[in-house]
Amino acid sequence: MGAEAIFKTGNPLPDETLQICKESDAVLFGAIGDPSFDHNPDAKVRPEQGLLKLRKELGLFANIRPLKTYSSLIDKSPLKREVIEGTDIQIFRELVSGIYFGEKFTDEEAGYAYDICKYSREEIIPIVHMAFQEAQKRRKKLTLIDKANVLDTSRLWRKVCKEIAHEYPDVELDFMFVDNAAMQLILNPKQFDVIVTENMFGDIISDEASVIGGSIGLLPSASIGNENALFEPIHGSYPQAKGKGIANPVASVLSTAMMLDYLGLDQAAEKLRQSVEYAIENKYVTADLNAEQHYSTSEVGSFIADYI
Amino acid sequence: MGAEAIFKTGNPLPDETLQICKESDAVLFGAIGDPSFDHNPDAKVRPEQGLLKLRKELGLFANIRPLKTYSSLIDKSPLKREVIEGTDIQIFRELVSGIYFGEKFTDEEAGYAYDICKYSREEIIPIVHMAFQEAQKRRKKLTLIDKANVLDTSRLWRKVCKEIAHEYPDVELDFMFVDNAAMQLILNPKQFDVIVTENMFGDIISDEASVIGGSIGLLPSASIGNENALFEPIHGSYPQAKGKGIANPVASVLSTAMMLDYLGLDQAAEKLRQSVEYAIENKYVTADLNAEQHYSTSEVGSFIADYI
Ligand SMILES: CC(C)[C@H](C(=O)O)[C@@H](O)C(=O)O
Ligand SMILES: CC(C)[C@H](C(=O)O)[C@@H](O)C(=O)O
Repeated sequence: MGAEAIFKTGNPLPDETLQICKESDAVLFGAIGDPSFDHNPDAKVRPEQGLLKLRKELGLFANIRPLKTYSSLIDKSPLKREVIEGTDIQIFRELVSGIYFGEKFTDEEAGYAYDICKYSREEIIPIVHMAFQEAQKRRKKLTLIDKANVLDTSRLWRKVCKEIAHEYPDVELDFMFVDNAAMQLILNPKQFDVIVTENMFGDIISDEASVIGGSIGLLPSASIGNENALFEPIHGSYPQAKGKGIANPVASVLSTAMMLDYLGLDQAAEKLRQSVEYAIENKYVTADLNAEQHYSTSEVGSFIADYI
Repeated sequence: MGAEAIFKTGNPLPDETLQICKESDAVLFGAIGDPSFDHNPDAKVRPEQGLLKLRKELGLFANIRPLKTYSSLIDKSPLKREVIEGTDIQIFRELVSGIYFGEKFTDEEAGYAYDICKYSREEIIPIVHMAFQEAQKRRKKLTLIDKANVLDTSRLWRKVCKEIAHEYPDVELDFMFVDNAAMQLILNPKQFDVIVTENMFGDIISDEASVIGGSIGLLPSASIGNENALFEPIHGSYPQAKGKGIANPVASVLSTAMMLDYLGLDQAAEKLRQSVEYAIENKYVTADLNAEQHYSTSEVGSFIADYI
């Protein structure tokens, strides 16, 4: 799927690929995007459509991104140690609705375009429950990030969250405007426990938050639906690294660990996580994590495999 | 206007207020927002509507936010000194279109809501020219922040920017997805010179970027139209500070300096800026900037006035 599939079949998500994914227990996803499409705003068929369609077809309504700091990498972060040390956030991003999937339209002649951000209660309720349940297992604080002072859809999110909150009296629910949240995440990330938010805000906020951990090359994500699940690193594709062996494999390895968790293979997941931690502690890392002494993508991969 | 106006007249922007603003050369704006409305998603009349209407009625299409670091405050930032020192960014945010002003709709019965993000060429062209012209006076680099891999409106922005770029061959134009930009702004803010972006992304990105300077209490902004202009701190209202004399007045003072610039009173603007710098260097600041030794809002104001 993606750019390669477009080049070969014209379709960013060929039916065959979709079929295989639907029949699978879980999907492990690489990364998507190709600069030749980004630089061509007229391209009608784009790699990202394949990923968006896959999320939609598999009904993956919740994208979950855990954020923690690795003590040996804390000094890699552009943020100060005392600001980030001990951060432990779980972000729940709604993934199959909102402006990503609303009607889009461009009128070349008249010279305008629009995108519609739409949400129904049914699209908000399941992920809000998921986030509340996760908060119950943790520090019992849930923050809804929205722009309720401007958007109707945000006010609907706020309303639904308030209603559902009655079912989780042990969880403290608070609200934060997305502009303020973009600040608070770097001013004081430790104030957050579980975050829930709509699709576009989640895209922005979770990429921003990835900086806390020291490298986006480390961060996995899980996209969960009622019947399917997909696991992918939060970083995008890295075409500049093609064939050079410099890309960091850790986010993909940790996404695999989340997949093993999901499949009930807890021990295997734990082993994978341990070996990643061991690799990082022992500086068996790619250049993005240590410019002085570094290893190639497959050397890091082999080290992790050997440790297991 | 705002909450007070709603309490007194039911209208967040009474006609009389609007008329006075329209007849003025420039408007100096305080801040808006009141928690009693934020916690009530059902409120039909809201303070922010007053500000949005004022921006629209005055045709203030470009919100300009300069971002610099103050050497004496650099260590207040959650970001490391080496990451932010020397940052000098000018953000141009489109202010009177996009999802803020598109049609909004809530159907309580059916349980859904939508917000439409719409842009026409006419709404994009003027601010893009402004941003290119500013880049020409600076380091000659312009970055468009968008989500062109998902949104039709972003692809229109990209197209318009590319066309206009031919008129500014000395400026380098590049494109960045908003999720990546949210990361890059904290990973390496020095890579940016001038940024141009649509309304909602500008709201998020510029608040995030405010963290670079050490305090959002320092940052002014100018909102420019063809016939009117408005100047306001980028921070919101701070109702918790009411009557306590703890709010930082510097962003308002520096907004006034931007207003004086706009009115051609360069010398007065310069004096205001000098006195603010003097106050900061000599630690005549409010508690947000120095918890150990701090002064009240009006003490800082008097110090600035006395220096002039
Ligand atoms: C590739 C892109 C369409 C995608 C998104 O915006 O959802 C990516 O940024 C992500 O966050 O998974
Ligand atoms: C108060 C609010 C409506 C406003 C906005 O979102 O534009 C504010 O955040 C700003 O950036 O000026």
